[in-house]
Amino acid sequence: MGVSHIEHIGIAVNSLEEAIPYYEKVLGLKCYAIEEVADQKVKTAFFKVGDTKIELLESTDPQGPIGKFIEKKGQGIHHLAFAVDNVNEALTQASENGIQLIDQTARKGAEGLNIGFLHPKSTLGVLTEFCSEK
Amino acid sequence: MGVSHIEHIGIAVNSLEEAIPYYEKVLGLKCYAIEEVADQKVKTAFFKVGDTKIELLESTDPQGPIGKFIEKKGQGIHHLAFAVDNVNEALTQASENGIQLIDQTARKGAEGLNIGFLHPKSTLGVLTEFCSEK
Repeated sequence: MGVSHIEHIGIAVNSLEEAIPYYEKVLGLKCYAIEEVADQKVKTAFFKVGDTKIELLESTDPQGPIGKFIEKKGQGIHHLAFAVDNVNEALTQASENGIQLIDQTARKGAEGLNIGFLHPKSTLGVLTEFCSEK
Repeated sequence: MGVSHIEHIGIAVNSLEEAIPYYEKVLGLKCYAIEEVADQKVKTAFFKVGDTKIELLESTDPQGPIGKFIEKKGQGIHHLAFAVDNVNEALTQASENGIQLIDQTARKGAEGLNIGFLHPKSTLGVLTEFCSEK
């Protein structure tokens, strides 16, 4: 599997405009990028913290995954992403271990990374993502 | 504030016995400590991932904070803990920035760390902890 570190923690927020000042002013972190991921119907804001990142997610469409998450559960931590050497290999290995996949193969996510999600039903309630740069 | 990294991510699970094999076998992480925190009515299991940790939390009492969390929301990510230089100074600074505190001053948590929690109503739905070794 080769998990090296936590690549990022995805946090659903109502509004980046409201959330960024909290992370910058209260926690002293610095937003280094804002990016729209049209495919996922979100606008994202990134903060580096040690060797991991916080990815804030604002929905751009109530029918998108973050829009639905916020309607059901409110703002909060949405997913946990592990850095792996190779997303396709990691997905295959997880599947062989009986884990239900959301993505059968890697696709492109924010920051140009290869990403793939595991189903939270198989991962003890934690929506889990694998990421790699290759 | 001086946040250096994410100290740990707290994840509520029904059973450590069921959860540890997932983190070890599927994700390839290694559980390096199991500790009961009687004060918080939990048994915890720790895994190192890069410069952060995963802290699994199994409730030892349905009336404790993790017991109540799981009854309401099911298993999943419970809190996010930032490493700071000094928990008392960080709590004071957050309070001065209008953040509602759960802990007014630092107390002892798992692994002998000084810890203090911010209220998720003030932190955009993320139960947030500060930790320091001093």
